[in-house]
Amino acid sequence: MEHCPFCTPEILNSVFAKSEHFYAIYNIAPVFPGHSLIIPKEHFVSILNLSEEQLTEMTIFAGKVTRLLISVFKTEGFNWSIQDNETAGQSIPHVHFHIVPRKEGDLTVPGDWYPMIQNNAGEILDSIYRDKLNTTEMDKIVTHLRKESEKTGLF
Amino acid sequence: MEHCPFCTPEILNSVFAKSEHFYAIYNIAPVFPGHSLIIPKEHFVSILNLSEEQLTEMTIFAGKVTRLLISVFKTEGFNWSIQDNETAGQSIPHVHFHIVPRKEGDLTVPGDWYPMIQNNAGEILDSIYRDKLNTTEMDKIVTHLRKESEKTGLF
Repeated sequence: MEHCPFCTPEILNSVFAKSEHFYAIYNIAPVFPGHSLIIPKEHFVSILNLSEEQLTEMTIFAGKVTRLLISVFKTEGFNWSIQDNETAGQSIPHVHFHIVPRKEGDLTVPGDWYPMIQNNAGEILDSIYRDKLNTTEMDKIVTHLRKESEKTGLF
Repeated sequence: MEHCPFCTPEILNSVFAKSEHFYAIYNIAPVFPGHSLIIPKEHFVSILNLSEEQLTEMTIFAGKVTRLLISVFKTEGFNWSIQDNETAGQSIPHVHFHIVPRKEGDLTVPGDWYPMIQNNAGEILDSIYRDKLNTTEMDKIVTHLRKESEKTGLF
């Protein structure tokens, strides 16, 4: 879809794992190391527009990507979050499922992570409130994650 | 499991929809009307302990429950959220998947919903910061939701 930041060819530079209909991309302005997004390859606004088969594929894929991130970033826990519809805080009208690996002490109050992704206006393109990774940093992480993904057939 | 608020017989009073291995329960201190939780019937701490079949069942069930809540509470959007592990803000060590229906203007900034569930310490038993529904209010909502659930075979 025109003007959708998740529908540009450049998005492929952030992809470190894939399934038939979904990509896992590394967030250019991660809240914590490992912060990634699952997005459908095709443009869907709402997860309710996905078929049951696609919803299943997305969840199983998200589970595998979460295990990968936990292993690579050596964390214990994680947050999953979806904001569906503008009224729910969805910033980009293309489904994106946040996976945020978490470890002890990363925040004083473990539940305080969420407001941090709220500053993620524009997500991949325009995370104006958080430091963005530069191309070298991004490439390094994505390359490493791809290598790990290859071991389990995720890339 | 002993002392788990989601493993008591009383939890059944909050159940308004069910699948083979999961319940949908109405939150006793909803952030917004319709705020519900999907919980496994059996005690699991992490969603990574669920089998792929259970994870699939949970997601498909969550999709159906979300459609039901959107219809009953006449909202446009919704938030889905899981906090997995104490380090990620999980308050009760029994998987619980938040579904929060959202509508325009319910918050000045649509993304500000999340800190509100953070006050949900103890969830169903002990939501000390938010108003709890009394038994009459809870029964009324649960009874209404069960009737709607029955129409699509969810209860």
